[in-house]
Amino acid sequence: MELQENERIDDLEYKNLKIIQNKNLFCFGIDAILLSDFAKEIKKNSKVVDLGTGNGILGILLCGKTELSEIIGIEIQKESYELALRNIELNNLQDKFKVINSNIKDIKLERNKYDAIITNPPYKKKDTGIKNENKQKQIARHEIEATLEDFIKVSKDLLKPKGEIYIVHRPDRLVDLIYELRKNKLEPKKIKFIYPKENTTPNLVLIKAVKDGKPFLKIEEPLIVYNDDGTYTDSILKIYNKKEG
Amino acid sequence: MELQENERIDDLEYKNLKIIQNKNLFCFGIDAILLSDFAKEIKKNSKVVDLGTGNGILGILLCGKTELSEIIGIEIQKESYELALRNIELNNLQDKFKVINSNIKDIKLERNKYDAIITNPPYKKKDTGIKNENKQKQIARHEIEATLEDFIKVSKDLLKPKGEIYIVHRPDRLVDLIYELRKNKLEPKKIKFIYPKENTTPNLVLIKAVKDGKPFLKIEEPLIVYNDDGTYTDSILKIYNKKEG
Repeated sequence: MELQENERIDDLEYKNLKIIQNKNLFCFGIDAILLSDFAKEIKKNSKVVDLGTGNGILGILLCGKTELSEIIGIEIQKESYELALRNIELNNLQDKFKVINSNIKDIKLERNKYDAIITNPPYKKKDTGIKNENKQKQIARHEIEATLEDFIKVSKDLLKPKGEIYIVHRPDRLVDLIYELRKNKLEPKKIKFIYPKENTTPNLVLIKAVKDGKPFLKIEEPLIVYNDDGTYTDSILKIYNKKEG
Repeated sequence: MELQENERIDDLEYKNLKIIQNKNLFCFGIDAILLSDFAKEIKKNSKVVDLGTGNGILGILLCGKTELSEIIGIEIQKESYELALRNIELNNLQDKFKVINSNIKDIKLERNKYDAIITNPPYKKKDTGIKNENKQKQIARHEIEATLEDFIKVSKDLLKPKGEIYIVHRPDRLVDLIYELRKNKLEPKKIKFIYPKENTTPNLVLIKAVKDGKPFLKIEEPLIVYNDDGTYTDSILKIYNKKEG
């Protein structure tokens, strides 16, 4: 596949999966890797929706890590949507991974149908944080086109009863996450905090919630990313598939 | 002070504070120590209410750790209430620490008046968990006479705007805590998870919420209780005042 200006191709070092990224668009980070690992329990033959699919990284990883039957990515930005299409082709996933170019609020998918939702939504509120970045990155990072509440409401509509949603977000939004999830009958069942190092505050949180689930939350062991010497911890190397699990 | 049957006197090893406990009633654990440490930022001259005061442990520790002007403990059980009165006398705290023998739902205190609430409520739902314990311990540990929702609603009524509530609870109730707090305009601002050891799941959570506070949550560093060899960690020794801070 031919690369365009500002593009590079990265080897995901997992089942020979690859991804084209464009440095002017949102490039994936450890967030996507950790979320796909957290969601790898998605069951065989699941129908999945990825809300805010970007260049397709989450869907591509999930196609490698699970035996899902079908995944639909929703992406509002034309450039990212087109990049996702090329990434799907690059990995020969056209049969199971479709993408729709739409705001998540406008999609017309069947309600109460899907087994799982996965999403790495914009982390920041509309008018907070530094915005010295281009429009495309702003839309990916800030709640400009859709808020966390929108992502959760759409998920509630799409999921079948007992369907599961997997989210990665920032810990400072945990109250918003938990409040909106329960309000929408998506009961948080599992939370994992990610710490950059030992003895620090967490900088990411992973949440699994179940539609119409019974209240009982499990908070998992902390996941530490770096050792004191700056190298990855064994837990992270396992997730990156560089160490025996 | 004379001890009755089934009673013992414990030295709190903090500013010469002492407490009488009765083995047939609920005896305090590390939960109370950690909560009083978490709440030690309560400001000078604060008026405080302790919901479910038991033998008075939290109020006694707070009188040592803060410069509060007044604390009112609410305790439903006659035996615990009477024990709290004796513990207040034992520590010469009659001037600032009062106790009322009442269900928290029936108290007639002035609304929108108090600067801070502190509470170690029953952890378990009414019909869950092992109940091979006497009636008094059941009431202290299970939501028989008041639910978490009751504790939060009463707190909302008593607190003045920007007043603070400090709670200790079990992590499996985190969704209930966060949901009910925000629903009652008590915005969670700080959460600390307590882990028995490294690489385990947490078994306690401390939450501070502020009445009419702006949404922004800080999740603090994890607090680990035991080293691998079973001794207390330095963090815990500092809280127990056995190590320079």
